[in-house]
Amino acid sequence: MLSTDICIIGAGPVGLFAVFEAGLLKMRCHVVDALAQTGGQLSEIYPKKPIYDIPGYPEVLAGDLVKNLEKQIEPFKPTFTLGERVERFTRLDDGSFIVYTVAGTEISCKIIVIAAGLGSFEPRKPAIEHLALYEGKGVNYMILDPEKFRDQRVVIAGGGDSALDWTIFLANVAKEVTLVHRGTTFRGVPESAEKVQHLAEAGKIKLLLKSNVVGVSGEDKLEAVTISFNNEEDIIQETDYFIPLFGLTPKLGPLEDWDLELQDGAIVVNTFDYSTSIEGVYAIGDINTYPGKLKLILCGFHEAALMAQSAYKYIYPDKKYTLKYTTVNGVPTL
Amino acid sequence: MLSTDICIIGAGPVGLFAVFEAGLLKMRCHVVDALAQTGGQLSEIYPKKPIYDIPGYPEVLAGDLVKNLEKQIEPFKPTFTLGERVERFTRLDDGSFIVYTVAGTEISCKIIVIAAGLGSFEPRKPAIEHLALYEGKGVNYMILDPEKFRDQRVVIAGGGDSALDWTIFLANVAKEVTLVHRGTTFRGVPESAEKVQHLAEAGKIKLLLKSNVVGVSGEDKLEAVTISFNNEEDIIQETDYFIPLFGLTPKLGPLEDWDLELQDGAIVVNTFDYSTSIEGVYAIGDINTYPGKLKLILCGFHEAALMAQSAYKYIYPDKKYTLKYTTVNGVPTL
Repeated sequence: MLSTDICIIGAGPVGLFAVFEAGLLKMRCHVVDALAQTGGQLSEIYPKKPIYDIPGYPEVLAGDLVKNLEKQIEPFKPTFTLGERVERFTRLDDGSFIVYTVAGTEISCKIIVIAAGLGSFEPRKPAIEHLALYEGKGVNYMILDPEKFRDQRVVIAGGGDSALDWTIFLANVAKEVTLVHRGTTFRGVPESAEKVQHLAEAGKIKLLLKSNVVGVSGEDKLEAVTISFNNEEDIIQETDYFIPLFGLTPKLGPLEDWDLELQDGAIVVNTFDYSTSIEGVYAIGDINTYPGKLKLILCGFHEAALMAQSAYKYIYPDKKYTLKYTTVNGVPTL
Repeated sequence: MLSTDICIIGAGPVGLFAVFEAGLLKMRCHVVDALAQTGGQLSEIYPKKPIYDIPGYPEVLAGDLVKNLEKQIEPFKPTFTLGERVERFTRLDDGSFIVYTVAGTEISCKIIVIAAGLGSFEPRKPAIEHLALYEGKGVNYMILDPEKFRDQRVVIAGGGDSALDWTIFLANVAKEVTLVHRGTTFRGVPESAEKVQHLAEAGKIKLLLKSNVVGVSGEDKLEAVTISFNNEEDIIQETDYFIPLFGLTPKLGPLEDWDLELQDGAIVVNTFDYSTSIEGVYAIGDINTYPGKLKLILCGFHEAALMAQSAYKYIYPDKKYTLKYTTVNGVPTL
């Protein structure tokens, strides 16, 4: 079992910065996230978008902010469990916790910090009969390793950036790529839409507009999808993989059953230290609520700082701590 | 009379960032500071020191952080009154304020935001009889323009970085530089102390250790200082200027008489919006206090954001405002 001082649920910017504030107080952190990489929304949804309201940054790309935060917390050697959603936690007799992920990872810790943003990001799944039967057997909602599709037949569905970007990328990797899109125009950036159009004209991919995947079939694994058109008959197309890319949607998920005081889908906290209704459990960033709350990254940073002071007193009730400025002492390492 | 939406007292990092948060809501700001430049302590006390706890900056020089904040607020065209301490404010019948500086500048505004850090920085003055009589007549506590001392005789007192740095600099500017220091070792960086030692050995400056300036004299302006030694008789040295550099000390100053609720020298605020006990007056950054308060720059940034939301509602009680993200709309200009 993994063991740490603080288990941080959520590896977004606020969860990452919490490692820094905890580290200044010599508390170790383990960070868990449902996504496969750190950075939360910033990495998953808008890595190339500029942000203008991070103090001291007239402009910074979301992905670069994440990189800088990762560099900032390096001295404190945080550990990570990525690609696993936290399911539940239990409290032991000594007051410490065990956090359990969906994949069975167990983390022993003294403090839990929920920095889960809007919740865990989960793929939007199309309503296709028997789809769930083929999950992991030819149906994928995220592409973690594109090599998996080398020389395979792939059907992608969707009209946003994800569908366009992966279609372009896999055109050079897969044996056969079909992009199925219900509309005639794309929501993604025009440049990508044009590229897809050119690939289709060059016969590098198959582009099916005004069409939908409406069925999946196969014996032990996916073997074909059924595609419907507006004014034509359905076709059945053989394929090795079907990848619906209809975006990710954040879900509070299991967190709703953790007996935390909630209000409008957010965790109620005390602004003194951003503690929740459960002793030893804190909530920082977009996941919490209090009077005046703004869902801004910079507010989460502040909340992380106050949380860390309180967590330190919770773990070490007898130690006296005086705030030290990093300009005087620099950053200690763990 | 100057007229603005928000008068920000204090041009430190938090005061500057308040311009940004107000600007996002299309409120104009005028910033007043007792120091001659923006940045507060960061510019005045430690511009070359690295800071490690600004989120997203693994390391940043204090002076660079100020430059970045200035660039970040440029689109909102803030105006400044620098080198003037705010003395008082009055409220008019319509609820708006007039802010008065020590130099007689008047600023008409709807909101006052006190971002005064530890207070206004004022020079530590040595206890020398009649010293005040010569202020501005040969006695200076800060060096704003070193050209003023070209080809003049200068006596500097002090043992810190300021005294060392200016001694080194003025050695090439003034006709004659004497450094008077009560000890035998310096508190400044060793490299500067060595340079001063070399300048003294080369006869470029006069270095008097274990000594103190104990008297000042002259008819209409300073003409001489009296220097005392541990075991020798006092000497009287003719000089054009006497510059005691014993550091700056922050003082709450007139702010103490503004009828704000104070606690341990800080302004008590509501964490909902960082408003003070006077309607329309907010306090953010190191100058305020509340349960859990940490005197960190990053906390002041958060406080500025919540203040701006509240200030907007105060100025425009009937307008409905929805939080906009800068990733979607970018930064508007004023």
